[in-house]
This record gives sequence, structure tokens and C-alpha cells, in this order.
Amino acid sequence: MLLLGLDPGLRNTGWGVIETDANRLRHIANGVVRSGAGPLADRLLRLHQGLTQVIAEFQLDGAAVEETFVNRDGKATLKLGQARGIVMLVPAQAGLAVAEYPANTIKKSVVGYGHADKTQIGHMISVLLPGADAQSADAADALAVAVCHAHHMATEQRLEVVG
Amino acid sequence: MLLLGLDPGLRNTGWGVIETDANRLRHIANGVVRSGAGPLADRLLRLHQGLTQVIAEFQLDGAAVEETFVNRDGKATLKLGQARGIVMLVPAQAGLAVAEYPANTIKKSVVGYGHADKTQIGHMISVLLPGADAQSADAADALAVAVCHAHHMATEQRLEVVG
Repeated sequence: MLLLGLDPGLRNTGWGVIETDANRLRHIANGVVRSGAGPLADRLLRLHQGLTQVIAEFQLDGAAVEETFVNRDGKATLKLGQARGIVMLVPAQAGLAVAEYPANTIKKSVVGYGHADKTQIGHMISVLLPGADAQSADAADALAVAVCHAHHMATEQRLEVVG
Repeated sequence: MLLLGLDPGLRNTGWGVIETDANRLRHIANGVVRSGAGPLADRLLRLHQGLTQVIAEFQLDGAAVEETFVNRDGKATLKLGQARGIVMLVPAQAGLAVAEYPANTIKKSVVGYGHADKTQIGHMISVLLPGADAQSADAADALAVAVCHAHHMATEQRLEVVG
């Protein structure tokens, strides 16, 4: 199965694709879509176009997005929300189910505890996905989302077999 | 010129189309796109599909969206932001410039002062756009955005003529 992880941001949205085969994970690709400068609608359009291109390149079986941390800065939350709307939309347009995971769950899934920092995530991604060589911290975070999704799907399948 | 006004919301997004001819305004159509229930990605997809259908029905020359009021409820802001991302995206995908106006500017443009309530907006919309008969408060707000956009474009044109 090919799984897509997404780390939404208005400026940079990280993406990562991994392959799951039984319990083995393999890195396929990662990158960042940049929205550039200009009016908000144009930036959202570029984000949509960039992600649509990425998704068209792979025969994906599922997608997952990090749940956004809501802070007290309303303007920042609104900006991120607008980008996140696009990031949720594009895989749905491709017919993919889009799972959401809280940041803590993703960190726990990749590093083993919920308060890991970006350096630890980057390190564990290179351990779990040899040769991943993430293009940026956003792309590494996106790969972490994909790994978390793979773990959760594997658990669900085991539960189904047991049930 | 045909102008589209949009009032974004995750549950209900109001839309309104008006025609501007010199300084006269005419109501063309209004309505609401509902995202229904279910996972967020599916709701955003329905919002995208609904708005894309609306925009395809008219030979639009421009679009405008109300600037979102950012409050202290981060979760509500995030929800609205996600919907607003889609609402900004769809007209941009159709090649339209998407203007943004603060709520105060819209109210001032329609009612004459910035603290008008929904009832006053609804009333003034029916005065400014005879026969509008807005389908809901969201649709009336969307028509108000379109009226505000028409006024601002007329002012800009006058300034260009003078300059």
C-alpha cells in the first residue's frame, strides 16, 4: 500500500509517500509544496495545483494529515486553517480517505513518546525509512504522519483478524 | 459585470450574484452551499463541488469574500479557516480575482454604518436589490459582500478616470 502523509502550512506544506508491506515500511518520496507570494487566493491555488500534481504521480491507497495545533494567535490559526482546508480537499478529490492524527499521536508513533522535538523526529524518520533524506523539516513531519498512519492501519487490520 | 459575493462557513456558505451596470445593481441569484455531515475532508469536498457548480452557472467577472472575524475560540477559527480556504480557492480556479473586505466595510457599504446587525443587512439588501428574496441570512450576507465589491469597483473606476 502507498500512503501519503501531509503537514499543512500556508507557506510550506510538507508531503511524504511511503510503502507498507506487511510490517515493513519503505520510503518512496518526499517534498514540499510552496505557495509563494501574492494574494491569498493565488497562494491557495498554487498549493492546490502543487498537491494535485504530487497526488497524480502515485497510485495512493490512503492519506493522513496532522491535526492542527490551535494556539491563541487567531490570525495564525486562520491562515493555517485556510491552507489545511486545501490540504484536506486534494486527497478527497482523488477519492482517498483522509485520516487525521494529533501531533502527540504522531510523535509517539515515530519516536515513542509524545513530546519529541523536530530533531528527534528527523532522526527517527531516517532510521525507520532508510534513504528517506527528507528535503526539510516539513517533509520529515509529513513522513512521520505517513508512518503513524501505517502503524494505525496495521493495528486496525490485526484487530479485524482477531475480531 | 457579474459579481459573486461569498460568506464562508463550514456548515453553510452563502453565495450571491449581482449585475452592475453603470451605477445600477441588479439581483441575479443567491443561495447556500451546505457541506452536510461526515468526515471533514468529505465536507470540504462537498463545499468545493457545490461552489464549483455555482460558479460554472454564471459568466462571472469578479468575486469577493468577507474577511473572517478571528475570535478567541481557536477551534472555531480553524474550522472556519478550512472552509474559507475552499471558498477562496474555487473562484481562483475559475480565473477570477478574489477581493477580501472586512465585515465593517461591507456593513458600511450596504447599511451606511459598520455596526449594522443581520436584520438591517437583510432589509437593505431587499431595498438595494429588489426581488432578491435571500434564501437565508448567509445568502443575504453574501449579496452584501457582492454589493460592497460593486461599490468599491465603481469607486476605483472613477478614481482611474479622474487620475
